[in-house]
Amino acid sequence: MRVAYNEQMDELGDLLGEMAGLAGLAMERATQALLHADLGLAETVIDEHDKISELGAVCEEKAFALLALQGPVAGDLRAVVGGIQIVADVDRMGALALHIAKATRRRHPSHVLPDEVSGYFAEMGRIAVLLGAATREILETRDPERAARLHEEDEAMDDLHRHLFTVLMDRDWQYGVAAAVDVTLLGRFYERFADHAVEVGRRVVFLVTGVLPSSEDFHDTTSRMSNLTVYPES
Amino acid sequence: MRVAYNEQMDELGDLLGEMAGLAGLAMERATQALLHADLGLAETVIDEHDKISELGAVCEEKAFALLALQGPVAGDLRAVVGGIQIVADVDRMGALALHIAKATRRRHPSHVLPDEVSGYFAEMGRIAVLLGAATREILETRDPERAARLHEEDEAMDDLHRHLFTVLMDRDWQYGVAAAVDVTLLGRFYERFADHAVEVGRRVVFLVTGVLPSSEDFHDTTSRMSNLTVYPES
Repeated sequence: MRVAYNEQMDELGDLLGEMAGLAGLAMERATQALLHADLGLAETVIDEHDKISELGAVCEEKAFALLALQGPVAGDLRAVVGGIQIVADVDRMGALALHIAKATRRRHPSHVLPDEVSGYFAEMGRIAVLLGAATREILETRDPERAARLHEEDEAMDDLHRHLFTVLMDRDWQYGVAAAVDVTLLGRFYERFADHAVEVGRRVVFLVTGVLPSSEDFHDTTSRMSNLTVYPES
Repeated sequence: MRVAYNEQMDELGDLLGEMAGLAGLAMERATQALLHADLGLAETVIDEHDKISELGAVCEEKAFALLALQGPVAGDLRAVVGGIQIVADVDRMGALALHIAKATRRRHPSHVLPDEVSGYFAEMGRIAVLLGAATREILETRDPERAARLHEEDEAMDDLHRHLFTVLMDRDWQYGVAAAVDVTLLGRFYERFADHAVEVGRRVVFLVTGVLPSSEDFHDTTSRMSNLTVYPES
């Protein structure tokens, strides 16, 4: 029973890792598509999106089977339920990459981003891809220390996001309201992608240690930024 | 055993319903605060937000205890796990109301919204409150037909959201980029609130019928709107 449980649990971790890998790949391609107005790459992200949700459904089924057939308790139970909760976060990471790809397609052949802010998105994209890879690693290794470090990458994302709003809110913004709306939403998509990665990390810490870090301690940056006049929160 | 299970499951449904009630109340207050630049009401939403997360933690604990002690199978297992998944959606509904309250506080004593769009937000707020109440009802009664009808209210929200973007993207927008950024994010918060309500409905349908409606059929409106030049998707 125990051996079967461990094997199935490893398999679930690998599948979740694979799912995070797909979400990370989607984000990598969506960012390249966005930066270079690459319609083909945007279409690839859009066409392949269903794979992420399908893998999520497979993960959920596997977790249900584990619960029903193995009847895990205590830490094992927490791990399986945690797996189900993680599916929702990774699924959302994929959906956010999809939104970026669709924005690229919608404006094609125009570029969505004014040159002035494309550097921000290149960097937010780099961090998002890094977070995707870290999420995969954490799901496969269940290393709580690596999970806790996601937080640092998320802070870098928050800093970029904050600076981006400073640029947007500047009186010298010359690209009109439509571009500002695009940049606002795209910036939010990157920031939310990072938040979901951090949430996965928080859940992995919980399922390994039994202690769920409070989301405030772990990644909420609201308190630091409540005096800013821009939109900092997740 | 069965009696205990049913009792505890009813209790979980009531607690989830209560949580949805708090999220709906937060949205109602946040909308009033937004429309009238009412700082006191915004502060109330912010101060009381923790109650929603705390109730979420209680729901999760109760569901874990149910899994560990009652060892439910088949439909019962699905119902308990569904309850845990629903916590994440309702928690997010509360967080979105919180974001709206914080935006109100951030711009106080100014109004966040230009007069031209406040009617849209009054209506989006009305629908959001209605969706919050429906979510509560569905969690308490587990009525799959009512759950499926959430979809109609979500369509009304999507329509409003789409029109709002038309106003924003209009060359006659006179309120500057900063207001456009605010309106963009606030509009998205309402739309996401509705999406999470619909997601709860979808999960309730699943836990009652055993069939998870595809999110596309149930609430994704992307295909209808892929030719629009605005940001329609959730």
